[in-house]
Parts: sequence; C-alpha cells; structure tokens
Amino acid sequence: MPKLIKERSKKAGLPPGTLVHIGAQKTEKTKVEILDYDESNLLEKEIETTDECLQFKDAQTVTWINVEGLHQVDLLEKLNECFGLHPLVMEDILNTDQRPKMEDYGDYIYIVLRLLYNNDTSDRIDTEQISLILGSHFVISFQERGGTIFDSVRERIRNGKGRIREMGADYLAYALIDSIVDNYFLTLERLGERIEFVEDELVANPTRSTLQVIHNLKSDMILLRRSVWPLREVIGGLERGESPLMKESIRVYLRDIYDHTIQVIDTIETFRDMLSGMLDIYLSSISNRLNEVMKVLTIIATIFMPLTFIAGVYGMNFQYMPELERTWGYPVILLVMLVIGVSMLVYFRKRKWL
Amino acid sequence: MPKLIKERSKKAGLPPGTLVHIGAQKTEKTKVEILDYDESNLLEKEIETTDECLQFKDAQTVTWINVEGLHQVDLLEKLNECFGLHPLVMEDILNTDQRPKMEDYGDYIYIVLRLLYNNDTSDRIDTEQISLILGSHFVISFQERGGTIFDSVRERIRNGKGRIREMGADYLAYALIDSIVDNYFLTLERLGERIEFVEDELVANPTRSTLQVIHNLKSDMILLRRSVWPLREVIGGLERGESPLMKESIRVYLRDIYDHTIQVIDTIETFRDMLSGMLDIYLSSISNRLNEVMKVLTIIATIFMPLTFIAGVYGMNFQYMPELERTWGYPVILLVMLVIGVSMLVYFRKRKWL
Amino acid sequence: MPKLIKERSKKAGLPPGTLVHIGAQKTEKTKVEILDYDESNLLEKEIETTDECLQFKDAQTVTWINVEGLHQVDLLEKLNECFGLHPLVMEDILNTDQRPKMEDYGDYIYIVLRLLYNNDTSDRIDTEQISLILGSHFVISFQERGGTIFDSVRERIRNGKGRIREMGADYLAYALIDSIVDNYFLTLERLGERIEFVEDELVANPTRSTLQVIHNLKSDMILLRRSVWPLREVIGGLERGESPLMKESIRVYLRDIYDHTIQVIDTIETFRDMLSGMLDIYLSSISNRLNEVMKVLTIIATIFMPLTFIAGVYGMNFQYMPELERTWGYPVILLVMLVIGVSMLVYFRKRKWL
Amino acid sequence: MPKLIKERSKKAGLPPGTLVHIGAQKTEKTKVEILDYDESNLLEKEIETTDECLQFKDAQTVTWINVEGLHQVDLLEKLNECFGLHPLVMEDILNTDQRPKMEDYGDYIYIVLRLLYNNDTSDRIDTEQISLILGSHFVISFQERGGTIFDSVRERIRNGKGRIREMGADYLAYALIDSIVDNYFLTLERLGERIEFVEDELVANPTRSTLQVIHNLKSDMILLRRSVWPLREVIGGLERGESPLMKESIRVYLRDIYDHTIQVIDTIETFRDMLSGMLDIYLSSISNRLNEVMKVLTIIATIFMPLTFIAGVYGMNFQYMPELERTWGYPVILLVMLVIGVSMLVYFRKRKWL
Amino acid sequence: MPKLIKERSKKAGLPPGTLVHIGAQKTEKTKVEILDYDESNLLEKEIETTDECLQFKDAQTVTWINVEGLHQVDLLEKLNECFGLHPLVMEDILNTDQRPKMEDYGDYIYIVLRLLYNNDTSDRIDTEQISLILGSHFVISFQERGGTIFDSVRERIRNGKGRIREMGADYLAYALIDSIVDNYFLTLERLGERIEFVEDELVANPTRSTLQVIHNLKSDMILLRRSVWPLREVIGGLERGESPLMKESIRVYLRDIYDHTIQVIDTIETFRDMLSGMLDIYLSSISNRLNEVMKVLTIIATIFMPLTFIAGVYGMNFQYMPELERTWGYPVILLVMLVIGVSMLVYFRKRKWL
Repeated sequence: MPKLIKERSKKAGLPPGTLVHIGAQKTEKTKVEILDYDESNLLEKEIETTDECLQFKDAQTVTWINVEGLHQVDLLEKLNECFGLHPLVMEDILNTDQRPKMEDYGDYIYIVLRLLYNNDTSDRIDTEQISLILGSHFVISFQERGGTIFDSVRERIRNGKGRIREMGADYLAYALIDSIVDNYFLTLERLGERIEFVEDELVANPTRSTLQVIHNLKSDMILLRRSVWPLREVIGGLERGESPLMKESIRVYLRDIYDHTIQVIDTIETFRDMLSGMLDIYLSSISNRLNEVMKVLTIIATIFMPLTFIAGVYGMNFQYMPELERTWGYPVILLVMLVIGVSMLVYFRKRKWL
Repeated sequence: MPKLIKERSKKAGLPPGTLVHIGAQKTEKTKVEILDYDESNLLEKEIETTDECLQFKDAQTVTWINVEGLHQVDLLEKLNECFGLHPLVMEDILNTDQRPKMEDYGDYIYIVLRLLYNNDTSDRIDTEQISLILGSHFVISFQERGGTIFDSVRERIRNGKGRIREMGADYLAYALIDSIVDNYFLTLERLGERIEFVEDELVANPTRSTLQVIHNLKSDMILLRRSVWPLREVIGGLERGESPLMKESIRVYLRDIYDHTIQVIDTIETFRDMLSGMLDIYLSSISNRLNEVMKVLTIIATIFMPLTFIAGVYGMNFQYMPELERTWGYPVILLVMLVIGVSMLVYFRKRKWL
Repeated sequence: MPKLIKERSKKAGLPPGTLVHIGAQKTEKTKVEILDYDESNLLEKEIETTDECLQFKDAQTVTWINVEGLHQVDLLEKLNECFGLHPLVMEDILNTDQRPKMEDYGDYIYIVLRLLYNNDTSDRIDTEQISLILGSHFVISFQERGGTIFDSVRERIRNGKGRIREMGADYLAYALIDSIVDNYFLTLERLGERIEFVEDELVANPTRSTLQVIHNLKSDMILLRRSVWPLREVIGGLERGESPLMKESIRVYLRDIYDHTIQVIDTIETFRDMLSGMLDIYLSSISNRLNEVMKVLTIIATIFMPLTFIAGVYGMNFQYMPELERTWGYPVILLVMLVIGVSMLVYFRKRKWL
Repeated sequence: MPKLIKERSKKAGLPPGTLVHIGAQKTEKTKVEILDYDESNLLEKEIETTDECLQFKDAQTVTWINVEGLHQVDLLEKLNECFGLHPLVMEDILNTDQRPKMEDYGDYIYIVLRLLYNNDTSDRIDTEQISLILGSHFVISFQERGGTIFDSVRERIRNGKGRIREMGADYLAYALIDSIVDNYFLTLERLGERIEFVEDELVANPTRSTLQVIHNLKSDMILLRRSVWPLREVIGGLERGESPLMKESIRVYLRDIYDHTIQVIDTIETFRDMLSGMLDIYLSSISNRLNEVMKVLTIIATIFMPLTFIAGVYGMNFQYMPELERTWGYPVILLVMLVIGVSMLVYFRKRKWL
Repeated sequence: MPKLIKERSKKAGLPPGTLVHIGAQKTEKTKVEILDYDESNLLEKEIETTDECLQFKDAQTVTWINVEGLHQVDLLEKLNECFGLHPLVMEDILNTDQRPKMEDYGDYIYIVLRLLYNNDTSDRIDTEQISLILGSHFVISFQERGGTIFDSVRERIRNGKGRIREMGADYLAYALIDSIVDNYFLTLERLGERIEFVEDELVANPTRSTLQVIHNLKSDMILLRRSVWPLREVIGGLERGESPLMKESIRVYLRDIYDHTIQVIDTIETFRDMLSGMLDIYLSSISNRLNEVMKVLTIIATIFMPLTFIAGVYGMNFQYMPELERTWGYPVILLVMLVIGVSMLVYFRKRKWL
C-alpha cells in the first residue's frame, strides 16, 4: 500500500515555502517538454534550461509545458520564478501526498489531481500526484514519473484531431483532466474483474488467501476514495466557473467530467458495499465449515464410543460372566453392535447431518 | 450481476464526442418507430432511414420517436444531426452504464433513466438504460432492447384514453417516465416476495443456499439503489421546472412521480434493513446449530468415557483383583454403570441440554 | 409483517388518476358519517348517498365527513367530484401503502398519515392509512377500517369540551392529527414493555425464541420509522403555515404536535440502539454457552483418556509383565488413577474452568 | 433503565392542555421556595399558597420561584394562572419525559432541561426533568424531586459572591442552566471511571458480568445522548438571542455553556466509540478462550488416542501373537508409547499450541 | 489513555470565571519568556514578575509571550489583568481538557489548540492543550509543559530567516499554529508505521497482543479525531477572516494550514477504516485457527476410534471366537486396521483437510 503520509519529517521546522521534494524519486532525470500551438502552427521540443520557457510566457499561442520527475528541485524553482508562481504552490507540487484540490490565485489556477494505475507486480493500485497550472495562455503539468497518460492528448494536438487546436489553454487543461478521469474507468474495470474473480472463488472454495484478497481490495478502495472524492469538489468548483480563466464554452465539457466523477464515486461506493457483503459471506463460510468438521467428529464419536464400551464390557475378566460361555454370544454381540451403529447412522440422516 | 462499468477501454484516448457503443448488443436490428399525433390525428409508422425524421422536427403535432437497439451507430448519428443534438449527448446515449441524470441544453432536455426488469432465468434483477430527449414538440426515446414497457402509453395514444392526446410533448415525456417508475413497484413486489420467502426459510430450515439468496438480494438492492437514488434528483429538477419545456400544468404530475420515487427509495432502504437483520439471524442460527452439535458430542462422551474406563479397569490382567472372583461382581458393575449413565442423563436434562 | 408495497400490479399500465383500491378490504361496507357544527349547533348523521354532502360544502359551519372503508370506489368517486378534488388525490387515498405526506392544492390541503395499532393475535404492529382533506370549512377523513381512534374527538365535539366547538376546520384537523400522534405513544409504551421483557429474558435465559422476538421488534421498528419519520416534515410544513387554511392561532398547537413527533422519533431511534445492543448480548451469550459446553467435554476427556489408557496398558496380554503378578499392583494402580484424576480436577479449578 | 415513554395512557383522549402529572411521585409534598433580590436586598421564604406569588410578578426585583415536586397539580395550576402561562406549557412541565427544548412565548421563555444523576444503588444513570420559565423579572424552576443541584446558586445569591446580585433574571437563568451543565461533567467523570474499570477488567479477566457492565454503560450512554444532544440546539437558540429577555451582556456566558455542551456531546460520542471497541475485544476474547479450550482437548486426544489403541492391540486375545511371548515385548512397547507421546508434545510445541 | 474529562469536581459550584487549574502539574515552575522584535531589533528575555509585561502591551513591535506551566494561578491571573482578558478566557486556559476552538473578543482572538506527542514509554499518543491570545501587536502562548514545539519559530525569529521578522503578530500566530499542525504529520507518520507493523504481524502470526495493539491504535485514533476535527472549523473561521486582527495577506497562509488540516483529518479517517478492516481480519483468523484445531482433533478421532473399537472386539473374552484361533488372524486384523487408517487419511486429503 502506498504511504498516506510521506516523509514529512524532512521538512519539520522549515519556514513555509521552503522547497523539499517529498516522495520517492521515480525518474532518472527531470524532463521538460514544450508543445506550443495555435490553429495553424505547432512547435514541439524538449528543453534543457528553463530560460527557454520565458519566451512562451506571454505568447498568444497556447503553450503546454509538461514536466516529468520532481527531484531536480533547482530546475523547478527556476520554472517557478519564470512564471511567477506563489512559493506555497511550488511547495505543494513537491509534496506528493496531497489530496486533489483547486486553488485560484487570480492569474492562474493551481489544480492537484491523483493518477491511479495498476501496479502489475503486486496487482494493487498505485497512485501518483499530477499538478496542473492553468494560466491565460499556458498549462504546466507536473508528473512524478513519465507515463503514457497524456499521449492521446499529445496525439490529438499533433494531428489536429477534434477541436483541441481551435480552443484555448482552458480546453487543453480540460483535455488533460479528462484523460486522468477516463483512466479511472480503466482502473475500476480492472477492480471489477478482481472483485468478480473473488466472488466466484467465494462460492467455489473460499480460503485464507481469499480473505487476504478481499482485504487488499478494501484497502485499494479506501485509497481510491481518498483520491476521487475531493475531485468532485475540484471539478464542481471549476464548473461553477468563478474564474475567468475557464471560459463559458468549456462549461459543458466540465459538466461531462463532473458526471464521470460522480459515476466513479458511485461505483466505488457500490464496490465497497459489495466487498462488505463478501466479507460476511466469507466469515459465515468459515463458521459453516467448522459446523461440518464438528459434525464429522460427533458422528464418529457417537457411533464408536458406545460400541467400544460394549467391547470393553465383554473384555472384563470377571469369572462369572454367563454370556461369555454361550456359543452364540459372540455373533449376537456383533449383531447388536451392527444394529446400534446402523441406527445411529439412520438417526443422523434423519437430522440431516449426513 | 450486470457489470457496473462497461468496456470503457474501447474508448480510452478518443476525443470527447466520439461515438462508440458501450454495452452488449441486445437486438438484431435498430428499429425506429414514429408516432405523430395531435388531438384529432394520429400517424404511426416504422421508418428505415432517418431522413424521414426531418419532416417531424418542426411540425406542431407531438412526435414520439422510439429507437430500439443502439449498436447501429451510423443510423443514430444521422438522427442526432437531424435534431441538432450536442455530440456529448449522443455519446452518453451510447454509454449504457450511465446513472440517471437530467441535462438541460436549452432547446431540449436530455434525461437518462434506468429500467429494471426481472431476469427470469437467474431470478436476479437486470437493468437497461433508457434515454429521453424532450424537445418543444417531440420526444425521442432510446432503448437498448425492445420491450413492452411503453406499450401502455402507445395504447393510450392510439385509443385516445386519458388526457394524453390533448396534452403536449411534456406530458408524453411524463407518461414515459411514469411507466418506468410504475415498473419499479412491480420489481419491488417481486423482491418483496423473494424476501418473504427467504424469511420463512430462515425460520424453518436455513441452509447455505439461504445465505447465497440473501447475498444475491443484497447485491440486487445495491443495484436498485444505484438506479433509483439519482432519479429523485432528476425528477426533483424537472419538477422545480426551470425549463420552459416542462409546462406549469405538468408540475402536479411530476410531483406525483416524485412521491413515487421517494416511496421506492424508502422501500429499498427498508428492504436493506430487513436483509441485514436476516443475515444476523442466519449467522446466529449457524452458531446455534454448532452449539447443538457440540452438545450431542459432549453428552455422548460424558456418558461413555467413564463407563469405558470402568470396563477397562476390570479388563486389566492383575492376578490379584478380588472383585473379579465374586459371583455378583459382574451384575453389580453393570448396575453401577447403569446408575452412572442414568445420572449423567438426569444431569444434562437438568442443565436443559436435552 | 404488513406488505410494504401493495398489489400495484393491479394498476400497471393504467393512465394516472384511474381509481383502483390497492389494499385488503377491511370493512364490510363503506360508512360515511357527518358531523356538522358551530359553537351553538350540532348535526350528526350517517349518510347513504354522497348527494347529501353537497349541502355541507359551502356552509359556514364546520363539517367533518368521516369515511370508513375504501373499497366502494364508486361512492368515493362521487364524494370526490362533489368536493372537486384532483384525480391524483383520490388515487392516493385508495393506494393505502403511501408514506405520510402533505400536499397543498390551494383550495384544500391533502394530508396522508399512518395509524399504528398493536395486532393482538401476533403481538406485532400493524399500520393503516388515514387521509385527511382540509378545506376552508370542512375536513374529510378516510380510514381503511372503522376504529375508535377518533372517538375522543367525536366526544369532545358532542360535549363541547375544550375549545373545539369554538374553533374552525383547521383546529378539527389538528385534533384528528393529535389523536393519531398521541396513539403513537401508546404503541411505544407497548413496545417498551416488550423490549424490557426481552431484556429480562436475555439476562435470565436466552433461547432461540428470544432471537426471534428481537428480530420481530427490529422489523416493527423499521415499520414505525417508515411511518413516523416523514410525519415530521408533514407537520413541520403545516406549522410553517404557508397555507391560509391553517390559521395563525393553530401554530402553537402544531408546534406541540411537532415536539411530540420529534419525541416519538427520538424514542424509536433509542429503541433501535437498544435492540442492536441486545443482539450483541444474545450472540455473545451463544458463544459463552458454547465455551461452557466445550469445557465440560474437555474436562471429561482430559480426566478419562489418561485413565482409560492406563487401564488399557494393564489389559495387555504380554506374558512378562511383572507388575501384574504383584499382590499390591491392583490397588497401587487404582491409587495412581485416583491421584491423576484428582490432580486434573485441581488443575481445572485453578484455571477457573470449574 | 428509566422509562423513555411514561404513562401516556393516562392522558389518551383528553383535550390538549389538560393537566395530568406523568411520572412517578418523587417528593412527599410540593414545596415552593421564593428568593427575591436586587443588589442590596434579599428576601427568602417558603410559601404555602400561590397567592403570595402575585406580589412578585410585577416587582422590579429579580424573583426566583423554585418548585420541588410536581404531583400537586392544583397548586401548580394556580401558579400557572398567576403568571399567565399557556396551558400547553403547564402540560409539558407535568409530562416529565420531555426532551430538552426551548420555546419563546414572547412574554416569557419556556426551557426544558434534563438533570442527570448517578443512582448509587444500581450504579446506573437516572434522569429528572427540570423546567425553567424566564420572564423579564422572574425565573420559575420546576424540579421533580428536591435536590442539591441549585444549592451553589442559592449560596451565591445569599453571599452576593460573583456578579449574580448585580445582574437580572437572565443571568439567574444562565446560572441555573450552568449548574445543570456543570453537573454533566461530574456524571461523565463517574462514567469515565466506570469505563476505565471495565477496560482494566477486560484485559485482566473478562467475564459474563463484564459484558453486562458494558451493556449497561452503552444503555446509559444512549440515555445521556438523548438528554444532551437537544440541549445544544436549546442553548444555541438562546445564544443567537432572538428574544429580548436574554440581554446582550449574557451572550458571552451562553457561548461558554454552549462550548461546555459541545464538549459533553463530544465526550459522550468518544465514550460510545470506546465502548464499541470494548465489545469487540470482549467478543474476540471469548473466541480466543474457546480456541484455548479446544487446544487442550485436541492435545489430550491426540496423545492418548494412539496410545490407547496400541494398548488395545496387545489386549487382543489371538492365540498366535508372537510379540506377546517375547520377554522384552512389554518394555519395548512401553518405550514405543513414550516415544509417540513425547513426539506429539514436541509437535504441538513446534506449532505453538503449548 | 489520557483522561477526557479532567477533575471537574474541583470546580463544582464555583461562580463562572473562578480560576482553578484543571489537569496535572507538568512543570516545576511556571516560566514566562518574552521575544519582542521588529524588522531590525530583537529583545529576548525570561521574566520573573508579570509587571514587566506591561511595557510590551502597547508597543508597536511584535511581542511574543510564551508561558510554560499553568499551575501558578496567581502569576497567570496577573498576566491576565495586565492584558485585560475576559475572566472566562483565563478559566478556559486553565481547564486543559478543552477541545480546539476560536473565540473573537474584538480586541483579541482566543485560540485553543491541542498538541499531540508520542509518549515513548507507552508508545501511545498523548495530548496537551496550547492556548494562544492574538492581539494587534502581541501573541501570548500558554503551554502545559515546556517543549521543543516552538523552537523552530524561535530560531527563525532569531535568524531573521523567512518573512517572519517583516510581518506582524498575525503571521507569528500563523507560524505557531503551523508548527503545531506540522507536528500532526509526524504523529501520523509514527502511527502509520505502527499500523503497518501490525498489518505485517496480522499476516504472519496474529496473537492476543496484536488485538491489544489494534485496540490501542483505535483508541489513539479516537483521541486524534477529537483533537483535529474541531481544528478545521477553527482555522476555517480564521481564514474567512471576520476579525481585522488577521490581515488579508495572511489568508493564503491560513488556507495552506486549512488544507493540511483537511489532509490530516482525511488520513485519520483512512487509518480508522484500515484498523476496522484489520479487526475483521484478526477475528476471522481466530476462527480459521479454531477450524484448524478442530480438524486435527477430528482426524485423530476418526482414525483411531474405529481402530480402537476393532482392537476392543478382539479383546473380548467370549469362549467361541473362531478368528482368535486361526494362525493368520492377528496379521490379517493388523492389515485390516492399516487399510482403514490409510483410507481415512486418503479421504481427508481428498476433502482438503490435510
């Protein structure tokens, strides 16, 4: 399970606004990519020094600066200065255990989102912080590690597919958020499959590992909830559109994402309810199995204890035991034992224990 | 259980507004029926090409276009263009895992509803998305599969029974929603019967399958909740009537559906509470039965262990065991055993174990 | 348990406003009683045809029409027409599975209430729908079956006790609602006694039937909640008095009922909490008893298994077993067995198992 | 546990405003004490007839009338008339199962509070209704039984300690409420001690009586909640000060009580959470003990069953059993048995059962 | 666990505003430190008498008075008088079981916070009340015991690091609150480690002490919740900034703390959910182990009971038992026993009990 609170002790006692990267280093080198476009032109390049950013700052074209890797604090600090962001914003970008939020600083909006992806080695869900800065003509996105999440947006910009090239920076921000929210559905699909698999196992043959899987799924659900619930408020806030940076024409698209978020939340809650139900089933199946084990024991004991007792009686060494001397004593006793044994079995069958 | 999140992976990375049908194909062919009526005239036909729709678009008569089957995307796309709907609306119609919602696009209102029906083979509840577009003089309804749900409305239009022929498109939309909500009561009636049946079984003879049925009922309840809870908001929104498309005269009817929705939700919550109670009963009945099994075992062991021990004592081969040589030794020991056995039984009866 | 959703299938597909009585027929004949009074005069009679109602409609005296039995739909329909009620109102009066609600139709207010009574044969709670129509000078009350619930109001009108004869139709409506709410306290008193009885049983000797009674009480509580929760809103709505039909002078009385309703709700919630606690006690008492049964078994087995083994050893037929030939072998072994048995008992007493 | 709903059946069918004392008689005689004071003068006496009250009604001095015992209905009725209270107020004063509430009748405010005290015989919490009437220059307080709860206020008035003699009737009302709320802390202190005691017992040696005590504490907590939750609203209402009877200068004191109430509620909720946790601990400690009992049984059975079987084999009477004739047969078998027994013990130690 | 309600009985019956220190004495001597600074000057000293405070009261420099230890009531009382605080404020400072709150007295704001620290001896969380008084040019902080919590702020003032020396008293108050909230993250980090440790133990080898640790963690979480939840409201209230003492420029910093508080609350809730899940795992692991114990017992009994019975049969002393005289009787019976034992084992393996 990913840590909920990351190494905050690194920062204890430092004045607010001090930049320290909180979280594991996930890429080798911080990579800064720039896409600058309008309806007719497109410039795409990877930059080395942040000085190159300056020229894009006030251009009328839409500029998308995508930063992958957050550990090169000095580089990020320069970027920060270049675009004149508040020190607290940069601090939040580096503290990668934030919950989703939206903060309006007037000139720009700062958005924190959480990307979910399936960790294939552990089959658990992992999470990564993605920060967006939306200005009037630029969007800066910060990812902890490089990933393919924004590839489809990049592709649409390159090909001019859809309306993206005709629209402003707000549409670009929308497209980036949309690709993150769309990704939630893939995560939920995968979770749904895992839940169905467990449900089948629960009916067929529940084992201790089934319980472990249910527990893991529940923990994942807690993590998902934490990542998605606040998103609702974030997108609701953007949609209500108190900021002029989000233009009227974007509203209908934001409402669409809002609906998706509600659907994701709804599905998470449904999954949680289903998992609770499964835990009940699992617990009662343990009890059921105990019942069955005890029945076997009781049947065996109830049949053989009386028989062993009878055998014991005729194994006593009293000198005067008249039955012992009769020729038919032995077969009669065997018959009696058989009758007792069979009637016990009949009794158990009648009580539905067999 | 129907999938909560359908094959969204089909759509990952496509720009918003791309039309892909999400969900299983449930009919062979997409069927488009038209009913066009006013107080005195009625035209009813099935159309092949969507071109025929155009003539109805601006007519002053009320036009109801009912589409069954959503997999012929091209046909739907044309219909869409003809009535000038927003691409996101068409996208939502095709994503058949939506939750109920209402969106006001000014010229028309887009309503998503979920129809519930009892799957007779599995005795579980299934669900289907029904989308409505309400314009000033037309209603378009989209169903995943053909069904009888709208038959009574169709009948009332044909016969001119009730007020439907005198009223506008808003009343038609109300009638369609009403027939869906009325259908919930039938589903709840069936669920109520299943719950009562389980409750009786729980008292008479709870088995593992009883638990499975309770679990299924709980899952169904989760599904129902998901389908009905948001409906309340949808109809509440229509009733508050911010749109001129819903005329004042329709309000009282919408309030009636609103009440029905509340009653459905209320009943679902009551069913949930009852099912929780049943699970408790089931679990405690397992424990009770374990108790009984253990009592049988304990009674048997407590009676026969001491007796077998006594028999064992007199089966020892010591040369000097004076009791063995007495003539009355054997019957006395048998009597002692009988007394021990009977007093054990008396003891258990006194402790209410028998 | 009374059905939550009554035979709605009777109505499926009928246009809104069609009158069908939903629910069991509880009286032989629909009985219509009229009480017409002002401060000085009082007219009381039972009518046969609803034509007689007309004269009371516009009179300045207060008219109370009490209808018992809802299955004679034609008679009710005429009454409806006479007072010019909306078809949906009559439909709701006949659908006797409504939840409490209040609807303001301008000229009259329609109020649905639920009366609770103790079914003496099953010792469970039953419920009945009571509908009130409050007009400017008349109140119409509809009961499913005749009952004594309104007798005290009738008596007060006849005797002119209290302020009822001096006040208008709104005070009459208040008096009727008050007698229904007062009746809830009686139901709660009876429930409280049943709960106390179960609590005592739980301490003294919990059995399977105790569980059944707890379960029944919980189900009753679910029913009560359903009947009383919405009432709060209903009376709150009346008290806020947006309708001129409820005069200012009635407010203080409505606030009093409102307080009573809150107190009833509060008590129901308290009872629910107490019943949950009792279920926990019951379940842990089962576990406790299992523990005790197992202790008995373990004590018996632990004492007699070693002893039986020793007896078995000296029952072996080896030719060279020196102990067997000693004269003191037998008593020494008996002594050893006694020591083992007693020390086991001492051990168990020390572990507090005895 | 005190009854939640008191003998309401006494009142069924009576018109609103009829005065019947609901609750047990807790004092022998109704006692009416008067304290009349301003900054310089103090008059204190016990009165016999309510006629004496009249003179204080309109005096400019602050008058505190304290009534102990509510069963002398005629006396209270006269008091009521003298101060011109609404009949519903008097009814509520006598119905001693009210929840805390505040009602503003313009000329006076009617406040219901609940006093908690520890019943020393049962070590359970009991509750008593205290009603206050705050007029412009008088406060009337009604207690079910005499008690020491207001002694400190009385003392402060007599000694002129604090600001009480300088302030008006509203400060007196505040002081009375404050002494009731302060008393809650004492009750909570006692409850906290009982909870800590149970927690210790739970760790050391949980028994069935531990469960009973937890259950009692939970019931007490339910009662407390019921008594304190509504108080928050009551004092909040007073603090918002819509009534001119509560002067501006009193606000800061009311805010202080409000904070105390919140703290009491908070503590109650914390106690509830802690008690829930304890129940879990108790239940799992029962399961743990069952496990231990079963382990003992299994160890005993697993060691002695094979040994007894071996002894049984050599107790068989076959004529040709070569081992029996060997001289070393017996010691060898004894050795084998020892080895089996010891290896079983070693096995159980390895599995950590010993 | 720290007491939730401290010795309130000390104060019962005293008039409001009486100063009594509620809580344990945690330092030897009350220590009063003063830091007085503006952008260029810094005065730092420890004072003995509160008379020295007076000179700082109206100075235009920022004055921070830090009080450690609350038991010298007379000293605090003088301080109180010097700064003209309301008696209720001083009372609250001394009652160290307050929940976080903020009270605006116009001239100054009174803030109660709770500091959390890990008690290293018991590995449990402890809590301490910290009170702040924010005036226009001064901040007074009250701690129960001396600690290092404010050291970093002190350091920053001394070194002039960050913006603290340039800003006013409101920034100082912010810095103090920030250092307390930052400290919560450290506490949560430690708690997170403890939870992870328990989770590992739960998978590897759950014991009774695991349960105790889970229970302790849950209790700690209850305490944390109590300390942090109200903080949200406190800081929200400061941020909304109805008081002129908190200047506009401070808002963005307060919003930052607000976000941190939300994150802390969020993490607490997540931890609670995780601990609930762990309890379920623990309980089901007990049940699982019981199942395993019972299986061992049942296997042993099922194998040896029939074998012992057979041995018993051939131990009987009947004179005519033909098998006994056959030469091959003994080895055949041994073989039969072997076959029975082995087939039992095979059967159990097939049922997956082995």
